[in-house]
Amino acid sequence: MLFTSDNWSGIHPTVLEAMMTANIGNAPAYGADDVTARAIGLLRDIFEQDITVGFVATGTAANALALACMTPPWGAILAHKNSHINVDECGATEFYTAGAKIIPLEGQHGKLTPDIVRDAMKFFTPQQPHRVVPKVLSLTQGTECGTVYSADEIGALCDTAKSFGLKVHLDGARFSNACARGKASAAAMTARAGVDVLTFGGTKNGCLAAEAIIFFDQQCGEQLAVRQRRAGHVFSKYRFLSAQWLGFLQNDLWLRLAKISNTQADRLSKSLAASGVCTLVHPTEINEVFVTMPDDLVSTLKEQGATFYDWIQPGDPYKGKLRRFVTSYMTTDDQVTEFSAALRDYINR
Amino acid sequence: MLFTSDNWSGIHPTVLEAMMTANIGNAPAYGADDVTARAIGLLRDIFEQDITVGFVATGTAANALALACMTPPWGAILAHKNSHINVDECGATEFYTAGAKIIPLEGQHGKLTPDIVRDAMKFFTPQQPHRVVPKVLSLTQGTECGTVYSADEIGALCDTAKSFGLKVHLDGARFSNACARGKASAAAMTARAGVDVLTFGGTKNGCLAAEAIIFFDQQCGEQLAVRQRRAGHVFSKYRFLSAQWLGFLQNDLWLRLAKISNTQADRLSKSLAASGVCTLVHPTEINEVFVTMPDDLVSTLKEQGATFYDWIQPGDPYKGKLRRFVTSYMTTDDQVTEFSAALRDYINR
Amino acid sequence: MLFTSDNWSGIHPTVLEAMMTANIGNAPAYGADDVTARAIGLLRDIFEQDITVGFVATGTAANALALACMTPPWGAILAHKNSHINVDECGATEFYTAGAKIIPLEGQHGKLTPDIVRDAMKFFTPQQPHRVVPKVLSLTQGTECGTVYSADEIGALCDTAKSFGLKVHLDGARFSNACARGKASAAAMTARAGVDVLTFGGTKNGCLAAEAIIFFDQQCGEQLAVRQRRAGHVFSKYRFLSAQWLGFLQNDLWLRLAKISNTQADRLSKSLAASGVCTLVHPTEINEVFVTMPDDLVSTLKEQGATFYDWIQPGDPYKGKLRRFVTSYMTTDDQVTEFSAALRDYINR
Amino acid sequence: MLFTSDNWSGIHPTVLEAMMTANIGNAPAYGADDVTARAIGLLRDIFEQDITVGFVATGTAANALALACMTPPWGAILAHKNSHINVDECGATEFYTAGAKIIPLEGQHGKLTPDIVRDAMKFFTPQQPHRVVPKVLSLTQGTECGTVYSADEIGALCDTAKSFGLKVHLDGARFSNACARGKASAAAMTARAGVDVLTFGGTKNGCLAAEAIIFFDQQCGEQLAVRQRRAGHVFSKYRFLSAQWLGFLQNDLWLRLAKISNTQADRLSKSLAASGVCTLVHPTEINEVFVTMPDDLVSTLKEQGATFYDWIQPGDPYKGKLRRFVTSYMTTDDQVTEFSAALRDYINR
Repeated sequence: MLFTSDNWSGIHPTVLEAMMTANIGNAPAYGADDVTARAIGLLRDIFEQDITVGFVATGTAANALALACMTPPWGAILAHKNSHINVDECGATEFYTAGAKIIPLEGQHGKLTPDIVRDAMKFFTPQQPHRVVPKVLSLTQGTECGTVYSADEIGALCDTAKSFGLKVHLDGARFSNACARGKASAAAMTARAGVDVLTFGGTKNGCLAAEAIIFFDQQCGEQLAVRQRRAGHVFSKYRFLSAQWLGFLQNDLWLRLAKISNTQADRLSKSLAASGVCTLVHPTEINEVFVTMPDDLVSTLKEQGATFYDWIQPGDPYKGKLRRFVTSYMTTDDQVTEFSAALRDYINR
Repeated sequence: MLFTSDNWSGIHPTVLEAMMTANIGNAPAYGADDVTARAIGLLRDIFEQDITVGFVATGTAANALALACMTPPWGAILAHKNSHINVDECGATEFYTAGAKIIPLEGQHGKLTPDIVRDAMKFFTPQQPHRVVPKVLSLTQGTECGTVYSADEIGALCDTAKSFGLKVHLDGARFSNACARGKASAAAMTARAGVDVLTFGGTKNGCLAAEAIIFFDQQCGEQLAVRQRRAGHVFSKYRFLSAQWLGFLQNDLWLRLAKISNTQADRLSKSLAASGVCTLVHPTEINEVFVTMPDDLVSTLKEQGATFYDWIQPGDPYKGKLRRFVTSYMTTDDQVTEFSAALRDYINR
Repeated sequence: MLFTSDNWSGIHPTVLEAMMTANIGNAPAYGADDVTARAIGLLRDIFEQDITVGFVATGTAANALALACMTPPWGAILAHKNSHINVDECGATEFYTAGAKIIPLEGQHGKLTPDIVRDAMKFFTPQQPHRVVPKVLSLTQGTECGTVYSADEIGALCDTAKSFGLKVHLDGARFSNACARGKASAAAMTARAGVDVLTFGGTKNGCLAAEAIIFFDQQCGEQLAVRQRRAGHVFSKYRFLSAQWLGFLQNDLWLRLAKISNTQADRLSKSLAASGVCTLVHPTEINEVFVTMPDDLVSTLKEQGATFYDWIQPGDPYKGKLRRFVTSYMTTDDQVTEFSAALRDYINR
Repeated sequence: MLFTSDNWSGIHPTVLEAMMTANIGNAPAYGADDVTARAIGLLRDIFEQDITVGFVATGTAANALALACMTPPWGAILAHKNSHINVDECGATEFYTAGAKIIPLEGQHGKLTPDIVRDAMKFFTPQQPHRVVPKVLSLTQGTECGTVYSADEIGALCDTAKSFGLKVHLDGARFSNACARGKASAAAMTARAGVDVLTFGGTKNGCLAAEAIIFFDQQCGEQLAVRQRRAGHVFSKYRFLSAQWLGFLQNDLWLRLAKISNTQADRLSKSLAASGVCTLVHPTEINEVFVTMPDDLVSTLKEQGATFYDWIQPGDPYKGKLRRFVTSYMTTDDQVTEFSAALRDYINR
């Protein structure tokens, strides 16, 4: 009953196989190899347009490098206060941008709206030379609250952003899960909606370490190569980053794996909601479930071998009662069934 | 009827005279002169303890250099969301600290309390390696809302900060005005209350460009000299920064000038409150007055020659209706009297 | 006849196997797994003392993170002018240290000596507050010229460094090759000689992406974890970095592979020197060979399928005539034999 | 017999008077005042073209802000190894540019030539993605060796720089002295020669703290305002920076004062050269004299009250024997005459 994090999962056999295939013989270093070209080709097909791409090993690197290409040091990045870039990357954005400022915004269920963006922009009038200059709107898809924006919602946010001259970044650490939910295609939720830069995560969903920085706005991507190198984020044996993407994207593996984790999260979520003693604080739309539950239920479940995290959001709105459950492509039917049984036992105790 | 900013005022004749006295002959560069030693001596007397001091020309430089000595790049600085470092220094703190993060906190009338600090700290548990690490509590005295902390309030905040291992920074751009209010002595509100570093502003209150960075925690001040130099904030003819402090501190000029601006702000504040059509949104405790007023009153007053700023706080809580009035040591009785008359005329129109 | 770079080689089967073993089941993220603990244990055995260790994917990241822990932004790093940190990491050291300065020094065959260090230090007298402050001596073992320091040479350099209060960094991108040369043990050339921090490279010598940052001075290593995270250099599935080290270090695979590449470089070097038309500009002590050769020989060899790089050192001392040949553990006897034959054909043409 | 530094001199009465005139009444803050507009107008006249200007208090700030507008963090700045930005600003350039790299070049008497630049550029071929990217050529006029470039020499260097896509920065801390030497006009040595950005120093030559950053390439200057503010280098009472320039530029005061210090340096230089026991190591073309002299002469002169600095250049080419003498507009005929007498006494002892 492992519900700690999708980061605890291993490499999917298909991804591993693609890496082994890429391992035959010598190959040019730093991305000048065939595997890399093919992986980028697959991404181009998925997003239905020309793109500039960099592959790195961590989501933090992907987000921070992307944002550093999007804002000068004196820029501001509007983002949800719960966003990973704001609270869980140890200041990587500030480091990579040489000091740009994240403006934390409130929004229900981890989502922003055009009105929230417009209200935030009131503070940044052009007559205020003392202030940082808003340059980027950063969204997360699926959000840090386990919810998913529709393509229309993203489109409306992009329109609002552009009316203020802001570029749009989409943190897609769990983008596969958002796509697997089936609200819209990957292209419809990004490039076609007006997103400028996507960081697309493969690591949590079956890869070893595979995060793609994808610039739909290719002018904005011109600095990527030099920033990536200067940060020590260019693998010399780059083909092994790229090979993961080959395995991950071919035959829709990425969507199939995400569907597994989404489905298990759905089951878990229903079970928790049906218990009558837990409260779902956000809708479950990807592979994360957020609930408040009685303290003795927490200890009972843990005693029986369930693992999951206490979760504190900024400002601690749930006063220490919030718990997070995460499923992965390795989560089995049995694990969720066992968990549901433990939950029923508690209720019927 | 000039109420735009105390930054519009000139150099007080006594300060100018001190500079002219310092101008006689050649003198060692970079602070190795007698005038500098004497100015530091005066500060030591006022704060009643040994200190490490640097003189710079702007409040932004003073705050940013102070904070850079207090936090590593991965540190967090807890501060009121309206604080000057958070909203009006164009990201200087982020620049000087190489990317430290300001955590904006809510608090009535620009003031923080121990409870607010304790609540904010809940998010930063030691088990969270993904997060920036809180290192500093930054307070402002007088605050950006024109209010003043008592020495006891500062002491309680310092105690709370220290219980979490945070150092305390006090932004004293209008510290003279806070002291002139007479709640406590300069030493009682800083070193004796537990403040580690004070930035003490002279510019707004009669100097040309005189801001002192004062380390009560002298170990923390060891980096100041090299940071100041590396930032290009060491005047070669340092004696002319120091001379301003001689003129400013001798014979309590700093307190006498601050009393003038405080008194004129009091008169202005009473007049606005008595009008019945304006609402004071914060108590007037230093030389700033914050009110909401009808739009046609704003235009009427401006037509009659009054100058003051539209004021937007983060989140725009007063929906575009807030106005700020600032007095200086150069504000005359006549200016306030004329303003009160214009206000009366409007009411009786 | 591939002599471009050891970065073109693949993953050694033993290393790959260790990764596959680590892939069984879920495991704690971010390094809290068993594989990581075991890999660190192996390094501790090799270096015969307690160490603080971080695993990252690139040598640039390893060097830059190490140096950022060793110097403040206003520090200076003394290094050979040909050093990788000075010329081939796109300013990563400057980025990670927030602007520390590399002082490029001249030295024969890529090596520094105590005299060179002492001469350089003359410029940095304590009375000079306008200057950056030397904090680190950075050496490379094996050097960028393909040479190897003896343990005594490193010891003497460490003594000199310490007499000036400098810490010592050792860039070990090809440390395996230096060790395989057999002059001294890994521990004797580092911790016992006085080195404070070693970056030990596995990537060029059979790993996928495996670089270890090893602090012998553990106080200096206290910042490593937070800097690594903030830079996006903490793999969530950390076990796959660690597993490479298990495979690499067990049964001396690292030394056995390095011996292969050293041996092939020796054969190549002898063949080039014996040709009578090429000049070895540096002794061949690891897996790199530096020669000047006639232009028509270059084109003849390339036509016959040999690949190698034109090489320009800072200042271009060989006026465009320098060529670099690199062997790897995948270089075969046949490749070198074929190359030697092509060389003989040219001479006898 | 004060020959330590022109930084020891005071404020010229005419400059002080201009500041006092500017002190009458209140005035808009942050440079929106009339005095500032007039000062910029005077500079425009001198340089005979439209310019973007910022006034700051120190030469270090001026150079570092200028260079930060000229290069990205991954850029390289080619400069003489003795240049102030390379050795005497405590890494300010690295700080302000977020880690750009200064490439130190050798050149006789502190001067660079087109050949030196071309040789340095050989290392930076476009095929080298591992290297920082040269973006700026930085020259100093008058140089750190007390010499002066002709307008033609600067023009040729600018042409060479531009052929490589480099912008040209001119550090003019002693630009007045170079102009006063009469080789060419201020405009001819800068804008007309192809210089993009000049930092023009007033502090050493009669001002309190007056350094102008002047962009002839105005597109390049677009970032200046926000960088200046973010660095805390925008005086709130900006009029007092600008007023110094009014006093300094009107009626050619800047040239008249520089002629005084140049003339005294000429006298000093001749006297030292004629002594037969000292060697001028650089020609004396501005207000600095560099000589080697016997140790006992040094102590004899110091005993008689002469003050001057031991001077170490990078690499210490004069093995601890170099001494620097600097004159200022406050240096009197008598001081030099007294020094010459002391020198004669030593010879005839």
